[in-house]
Amino acid sequence: MGRGSGVRGFEGSGAGTRTPEPRNPRTLPFGITCGDPAGIGPEIVLKALNGMTRLQPRIIGPLDVFRREQKRLGTDVDLNLVDDSVKGLGRYEYGKPQLACGKTALLALEMGARLLLQGRIRALVTAPVSKQALRLAGFTWPGQTEFLAHRLRARSYAMLAWTPMFKAVFVTIHLPLAKVSRHLTANAVAGRIELLHRFLCDLGEPRPRICVMAFNPHAAEFTLGEERRIAAGITRARSSGYNVVGPVPADAAIASLMKGSRVQGFKGSGRRARTPLFNGYVAMYHDQAMIPAKLLGRDSGVNVTLGLGRIRTSPLHGVAFDIAGRGIASPGSMRAAIRLALQLSRR
Amino acid sequence: MGRGSGVRGFEGSGAGTRTPEPRNPRTLPFGITCGDPAGIGPEIVLKALNGMTRLQPRIIGPLDVFRREQKRLGTDVDLNLVDDSVKGLGRYEYGKPQLACGKTALLALEMGARLLLQGRIRALVTAPVSKQALRLAGFTWPGQTEFLAHRLRARSYAMLAWTPMFKAVFVTIHLPLAKVSRHLTANAVAGRIELLHRFLCDLGEPRPRICVMAFNPHAAEFTLGEERRIAAGITRARSSGYNVVGPVPADAAIASLMKGSRVQGFKGSGRRARTPLFNGYVAMYHDQAMIPAKLLGRDSGVNVTLGLGRIRTSPLHGVAFDIAGRGIASPGSMRAAIRLALQLSRR
Repeated sequence: MGRGSGVRGFEGSGAGTRTPEPRNPRTLPFGITCGDPAGIGPEIVLKALNGMTRLQPRIIGPLDVFRREQKRLGTDVDLNLVDDSVKGLGRYEYGKPQLACGKTALLALEMGARLLLQGRIRALVTAPVSKQALRLAGFTWPGQTEFLAHRLRARSYAMLAWTPMFKAVFVTIHLPLAKVSRHLTANAVAGRIELLHRFLCDLGEPRPRICVMAFNPHAAEFTLGEERRIAAGITRARSSGYNVVGPVPADAAIASLMKGSRVQGFKGSGRRARTPLFNGYVAMYHDQAMIPAKLLGRDSGVNVTLGLGRIRTSPLHGVAFDIAGRGIASPGSMRAAIRLALQLSRR
Repeated sequence: MGRGSGVRGFEGSGAGTRTPEPRNPRTLPFGITCGDPAGIGPEIVLKALNGMTRLQPRIIGPLDVFRREQKRLGTDVDLNLVDDSVKGLGRYEYGKPQLACGKTALLALEMGARLLLQGRIRALVTAPVSKQALRLAGFTWPGQTEFLAHRLRARSYAMLAWTPMFKAVFVTIHLPLAKVSRHLTANAVAGRIELLHRFLCDLGEPRPRICVMAFNPHAAEFTLGEERRIAAGITRARSSGYNVVGPVPADAAIASLMKGSRVQGFKGSGRRARTPLFNGYVAMYHDQAMIPAKLLGRDSGVNVTLGLGRIRTSPLHGVAFDIAGRGIASPGSMRAAIRLALQLSRR
């Protein structure tokens, strides 16, 4: 437990919830949702768990879906771990949004949220969903993150893209880019810095160095005032004692990742620096963090929700309808999501 | 010569210019400007040329600056190559924008543009300038690219970020991000696709595959109409016979770079694919292309101007005032800029 980043422990606002069971949270199982069965969700869940025999998670999704996938993939996961309260969904096709699959994904997500809120799982790992399918099932949230934040009554929450080299929290996520500017307030920036700082501390970094990206090219050179507001947020965070610089032009901020790992000299005798320049980044909009995360994370990117008062992670990719049912999806990102949840819940 | 991408040859609109000298363009020297003397420009010019003895360029900048830098750095470049028409600038300090340095950078740039227009150099490579210093000297253009396009009377031109792995042309460059949306027209997108296609052909790719990035997160999911206009530009380019897909969400487009180089499978037995998925990308705004270019280009990114009717390249970084005069600037990007100009001028 402890104050932490709000990604762990049970200190979240629990108004109106059932009393948590009096079990040691470290002995509680993980919850893992199936995601959209027409996508690669159940496949990557089974593939990821196949190599993790000591983990005894609660797999949330229809038993018949996991039975069929296990047979198809040849994995060897104990299907007694499947929580059968999300019932079978009958026939469906791989690779496209369908009402029945949307309903199943939503039921699994709701069950996961409930178990998390009731303290009956120590972390929730969600497989990818199709927003189109979810909408067919009546889901009106922009994504799983926003839904979970609502269900867990989080006041201040944010999405974070985690990769081994690059960790970035988003000030905005799912907005038209032309509308992002008005959401970049000093308050929003300061809040994200605080969440990121606490997350990095949870990962064992005693005094995290944080870099805040600018919104416009070259930072203030082409600003319409966004950089002034971002700077005000940074000033506020600094006065609270956080170690933070910015706003730095986004491409330069990303280039600093490279500089941190290699000191260049005239003779080309690059030698490894001991530490990266920054432990974490604050990005203003979706692609600003997702482009480097996809490049650097390759097969190990994780989506983390900060500020829930609970641990929630997810692979940093979508349902991949184009390769669903073909057995070729990589479980790397799902495995990383499980491992990161494990790491956060151990501290 | 030939039609080409408009980065080479002498077919550009030459109204009002002096008649080009009747020399074989392949025997003409390169022009290399000094950039801002208070930055790393002269340093990387000398370091880059130090390892390129066969190249006999016309170095455009004050002789006294290059003399001093050569002494400081211990390089061995033939200073008879320095065009002494840009006179010395007296005392200046490293690491900050100054009027005298801005004047010098501007004179060198103007000289380079004139030589290029008159067909007296076969390519122009420009070292980085400080826009602040240039403005002190009365320069009113957003950057060197726009200035050169004006001087060379280019009707349709664009900036391209070149790295060995990733080539991207920009639909917009130096604009506040909140204003980019209105500049994303079908015309602009189709024009950039054409310039990129011709550039990739110039580099020896017979049938380039082009990927156009979306503007909004997840492409059309959060669109305010930009993706419809981008798609219209793509349709127009396709009807002209170009091999182009999009709009693809920018992070997925970038992730395709990774997929192209590695085919993933269940057993993790990634094997190299023979060809990348795409030869070039069209980016909607500055950071969308610059973030991956800085990550992937590291020390070899080049800025190319397309559509000038002449070859112009430049390192993909700025004056680096923070390390100017310390002798630690890497000439990698400048060397890549020279090599790319060489490659383009040979075809």
